[in-house]
Amino acid sequence: MLAIDPEAAGGPEVLAPVERPVPVAGPGEYLVKVAAAGVNRPDVMQRKGMYPPPPGAPSILGLEIAGTVVAAGEGADASMIGSKVCALVAGGGYAEYCAAPAGQCLPVPPAISMVEAAAIPETLFTVWSNLFERAYAIEGDTVLVHGGTSGIGTMAILLGKLFELVVIVTCGSDDKCARALEIGAAHAINYKTQDFVEEVKRITGGKGVQAVLDMVGGDYVPRNLQCLAPEGRHVTIAVQGGPKATVSLVDIMLRRLTMTGSTLRARELAFKALVADELKREVWPHAAEGRLKPIIDATFPLAEAAKAHERMDGGDHVGKIVLTVEG
Amino acid sequence: MLAIDPEAAGGPEVLAPVERPVPVAGPGEYLVKVAAAGVNRPDVMQRKGMYPPPPGAPSILGLEIAGTVVAAGEGADASMIGSKVCALVAGGGYAEYCAAPAGQCLPVPPAISMVEAAAIPETLFTVWSNLFERAYAIEGDTVLVHGGTSGIGTMAILLGKLFELVVIVTCGSDDKCARALEIGAAHAINYKTQDFVEEVKRITGGKGVQAVLDMVGGDYVPRNLQCLAPEGRHVTIAVQGGPKATVSLVDIMLRRLTMTGSTLRARELAFKALVADELKREVWPHAAEGRLKPIIDATFPLAEAAKAHERMDGGDHVGKIVLTVEG
Repeated sequence: MLAIDPEAAGGPEVLAPVERPVPVAGPGEYLVKVAAAGVNRPDVMQRKGMYPPPPGAPSILGLEIAGTVVAAGEGADASMIGSKVCALVAGGGYAEYCAAPAGQCLPVPPAISMVEAAAIPETLFTVWSNLFERAYAIEGDTVLVHGGTSGIGTMAILLGKLFELVVIVTCGSDDKCARALEIGAAHAINYKTQDFVEEVKRITGGKGVQAVLDMVGGDYVPRNLQCLAPEGRHVTIAVQGGPKATVSLVDIMLRRLTMTGSTLRARELAFKALVADELKREVWPHAAEGRLKPIIDATFPLAEAAKAHERMDGGDHVGKIVLTVEG
Repeated sequence: MLAIDPEAAGGPEVLAPVERPVPVAGPGEYLVKVAAAGVNRPDVMQRKGMYPPPPGAPSILGLEIAGTVVAAGEGADASMIGSKVCALVAGGGYAEYCAAPAGQCLPVPPAISMVEAAAIPETLFTVWSNLFERAYAIEGDTVLVHGGTSGIGTMAILLGKLFELVVIVTCGSDDKCARALEIGAAHAINYKTQDFVEEVKRITGGKGVQAVLDMVGGDYVPRNLQCLAPEGRHVTIAVQGGPKATVSLVDIMLRRLTMTGSTLRARELAFKALVADELKREVWPHAAEGRLKPIIDATFPLAEAAKAHERMDGGDHVGKIVLTVEG
């Protein structure tokens, strides 16, 4: 089969298509004939050699797919063969076929295209398990999300609308701010021209936000903490701006703040299956009724994965970049 | 009445006894004739001018008392007059009389002396609300507590025994380590001669602890985080070693750590009353049956509060220093 499985780290040009054997569905897995695969920031980091796949995961890039079940491994429900699913995978998505743990598959409802379905799992699992669980955001909470037009940011806006959060985002241009507001953000702050700490204070009337979903890290973290209301929660999901942060313990004590974070890819199967079950129950009814449509920036054929990464590297995208597979 | 209400910040010598008017029991308060008052680290900081009383609190030192109710303010239960109570107060404890919110009073059972009762509230409220609530330590958890022979440390050991935690403490000498083990710590690490991170790893077989109760801050915090098991919780309750900390966000993400903290004194009455209710239900039966006896280091007459602070400043104490009031 065709797959994107670079032998060396580097720029987008290392993503030339290669031939690889079709994977076998292991115990509890489905083999999925891939129709579309989402592109995510961790794929870029993996391409650059900065984010090796966890033990046991394929070296083929790609953390989410949509497609049709064509085989069921031992213990997986064979009656699913022929069904359309989308899935979170620990790797292997940029390919014509991909093995996916049955517990991480969600059915693709008619209201959603395969491209849309492939654009959902990584950001949905991430935003759900971090913003709603780790930061326990609830109806009526105001939350700050950086990267408002990223895949994560747009999913946070969409879920925020469904679950009645007030979502404040930051973006890197006025155009992106306008797009974030169109998608449903309550407020969008251009971090290049405005001080987001001051803006959050202004927007919240000095009260601060209940939660921050942060993928920047570094010197954003102490500034994020300044945005939090008493008992506010700060969740780190990426550290593009720096792996360490210097924080005021006095602020943490006086306002009883909580800092936490998580990664998704290396988590055990049981955790991912648990999140999938929650998503089926809490979010999937919205998706089935067309109320959760991911924002698609662009699609590229699988063989042009390099172009997809060029677009992500360029940083002009709004929403998700998706690879499509013919057939 | 006699009280310790220094007009200037400084060393223990500023704690000379002075005459002050007997306070009036306000709405929802009892006036307590003080028999004994606990000495706490925040009192030392207040004496030094580094910890001003919160708005509305008396400038007289002292955060905990035991004594006899002699008057009830509006809305407080007058039938309590004549009862022995101990109480958490926001100030005013180093005095012959002290007004205490009724919701923060606990009855003194016969199994406990007035000196012991006065030595309980501050550390009990603090350890309970931070180690058991904020860090949600539960039966079977292993926890790391610094300052193992301090008032907080000894209370954490005692509560850990009652609620089946494995308590690892650090202390500044082999003698103090021996005392901590006598009191009931499972392990005591001399931080002057041993690397507590390495020792915690060794003791836990590399697994780490479920929670750290930290009153050091500064560069202890990143070391504390290294001691935590996945999903471990770090709670800051004081920052004697520095108000800021530089932490690894990657560690927080990969092991899904939580950092939080709190202060007690400035919290609203409703919170303190809620904790008092929990303590009455969960801890007080143990106290009534003699299973929770605070460790008393030394007692001094109220008029010799300066000597009590000298002893705390010296750092040789184990457990609580308590002031006693004649009459």
